[in-house]
Amino acid sequence: MDYGKKALAAHQKLAGKIEMSTKASLDSREKLSLYYTPGVAAVSSLLAKKPQLARDYTWLGNSVAVISDGSAVLGLGDIGPYGALPVMEGKAMIFKDFAGIDAIPIVLNVHQPEQIIQAVSAIAPSFGGINLEDIAAPECFEIENQLQKSLPIPVFHDDQHGTAIVVLAGLLNACQLTGRTLNSSKIVISGVGAAGVATARLLKKSAPKATILAVDSQGLLYRGRAGQNPVKKRLLASRVVSSSAGGNLAQALESADIFVGVSKGGIVSPPMVASMSKDPIVIAMANPSPEILPDDAKLGGAAIVATGRSDLPNQINNALAFPGIFRGALDNKVKKITDAHKIAAAKVIAGLVARPTPDCIIPTVLDKRLVPAIARVIT
Amino acid sequence: MDYGKKALAAHQKLAGKIEMSTKASLDSREKLSLYYTPGVAAVSSLLAKKPQLARDYTWLGNSVAVISDGSAVLGLGDIGPYGALPVMEGKAMIFKDFAGIDAIPIVLNVHQPEQIIQAVSAIAPSFGGINLEDIAAPECFEIENQLQKSLPIPVFHDDQHGTAIVVLAGLLNACQLTGRTLNSSKIVISGVGAAGVATARLLKKSAPKATILAVDSQGLLYRGRAGQNPVKKRLLASRVVSSSAGGNLAQALESADIFVGVSKGGIVSPPMVASMSKDPIVIAMANPSPEILPDDAKLGGAAIVATGRSDLPNQINNALAFPGIFRGALDNKVKKITDAHKIAAAKVIAGLVARPTPDCIIPTVLDKRLVPAIARVIT
Repeated sequence: MDYGKKALAAHQKLAGKIEMSTKASLDSREKLSLYYTPGVAAVSSLLAKKPQLARDYTWLGNSVAVISDGSAVLGLGDIGPYGALPVMEGKAMIFKDFAGIDAIPIVLNVHQPEQIIQAVSAIAPSFGGINLEDIAAPECFEIENQLQKSLPIPVFHDDQHGTAIVVLAGLLNACQLTGRTLNSSKIVISGVGAAGVATARLLKKSAPKATILAVDSQGLLYRGRAGQNPVKKRLLASRVVSSSAGGNLAQALESADIFVGVSKGGIVSPPMVASMSKDPIVIAMANPSPEILPDDAKLGGAAIVATGRSDLPNQINNALAFPGIFRGALDNKVKKITDAHKIAAAKVIAGLVARPTPDCIIPTVLDKRLVPAIARVIT
Repeated sequence: MDYGKKALAAHQKLAGKIEMSTKASLDSREKLSLYYTPGVAAVSSLLAKKPQLARDYTWLGNSVAVISDGSAVLGLGDIGPYGALPVMEGKAMIFKDFAGIDAIPIVLNVHQPEQIIQAVSAIAPSFGGINLEDIAAPECFEIENQLQKSLPIPVFHDDQHGTAIVVLAGLLNACQLTGRTLNSSKIVISGVGAAGVATARLLKKSAPKATILAVDSQGLLYRGRAGQNPVKKRLLASRVVSSSAGGNLAQALESADIFVGVSKGGIVSPPMVASMSKDPIVIAMANPSPEILPDDAKLGGAAIVATGRSDLPNQINNALAFPGIFRGALDNKVKKITDAHKIAAAKVIAGLVARPTPDCIIPTVLDKRLVPAIARVIT
């Protein structure tokens, strides 16, 4: 069906998918004096002296900024702050509906890492957490790192870690179903942007003996190859990604156990899947068209296929992870989301599928058990 | 009564006076696909091409940021972002309850004008308007000027203009009641910060023949006096404030028609009021204790007394003005609040009092006619 037309009409009708509400009405002088002046002065005086109490007297304990500069929105690329805003509003809806979190969409009209870091640092006292969103790689890595280093609240770039967590969750069940372990697997990641880099790192952290190869638009990454940005070089230097003799995606896939695609639609063919090891796992998340469609992957012998699409089985959707991650971080006063948190969250997500099948390796995003279960392990 | 203790308890109970709400629930895959991916991509693509449509498809047409660096909060001074947050939340409550506007509290941990301008400019695409709040003078003037020059949305420093508008509204009725005109009045303004400067400017704009004297902590302003910042010098150079031979507040008040205090509690005595012209008007807004209490001012012969307090008659309260100002600006796509808007708003506020009396020169903030009536003239 054509979601585009329906979505345009629905968005125009609402003119804003979110709104502010007051928790008390100001219908008397009494209430105005209590919640505004002169009463509020007592609260302000207290928090000036003890800022650590702010989360108990303001919405800081439940608020998250969803921040983007619009430089890498969905599959649409650099479409600027106004193009990004409807996505950030949608994310804010998910935060509230799924996890009861007050999320505020913030879109930026600056794009240099230094400027983004300055702007986010300046407004950071307004929020209990920062969800970075749709910021282009490789800038996104430095931005998140610097902010997390300097701010006393969790800073979480969802395009990176949300994807990595849910991919790991899916792979845990898929490996079990196909009788392999991640640690003994050869994994090929196509796409070395925000999601690809974070997924490689988290998979290696979770399964240090796994062999991970990464392919970008110029082919396999390897030590000394031209055209590799510092982040790619670091992946190789730290042995998160194994160096190789080079080659293209098709060559990389030969005898691989697992394909993880966060790249471009249609770049994987059935014969390429057929060249993988027995019962291979194919996770093809290119947006909106996957690297290979499930039927084609199965033609090539794939045992399990997952995509990013909501109309196909096994949807790898960040919304499985981020609401619970932030719910836990806010409730448990966690200042930084660590790799241990991410791996724990992936295990929780995988564990919610009582009996995994090839068409059900992860829960649906509507599963109400997700948020409380994940939040419990973010401590 | 002790509002402080009650306010502390009430704030702790709510842990946030505001919250986000969703305008549609995400309880099905269908709705997720409509309001988030894949549907939202159509909206993002449209707004990337035509950002001017953003207010029709997002909450931009109804959202205002309430921004402070916490450098001049209430009468408490420089208490930082966490101290400021409860006040900004209170203001957000008023925006929503009085005018249906979605206001987002943003507190900054930068204080240099250049840094504040950069941070606010960076996040500006997120909002339909900017309400600056509780930023210290004289920095506030440059910050507002620069932002309004560069941004395509209204930027309104409420401590300046909200106060100026409501003072003018009150004076329109007070002058009528005491048989004088603003144009023929001698006006003494005590306090030359954000509110004092803006009030002097708006009164002069509204009544070009009025004589306005201004007094700061060092006495009357006059050309060549030491210790006058550039803003004070400009008030004199532009003849908004008349130069004088110098002197203190008591000397300034001799034969004055109107006193406007935005300074310090208790600095005006009954004999000082007695030295003013017949039936003088006293507007004493120092927070929390006025420059002179109404009973004392009346002892000195004041015909009309107004204060900033909610428990006394004639409360000069910015909340009379700003909700309607922003309602009108958003609805009528006004990009800048001009002096003409401010004077029109003051006349509307004054006009809502059908029969002014000495104890009722302005409406109460709970008057439901205010917002629609003011919004109508912000075009």
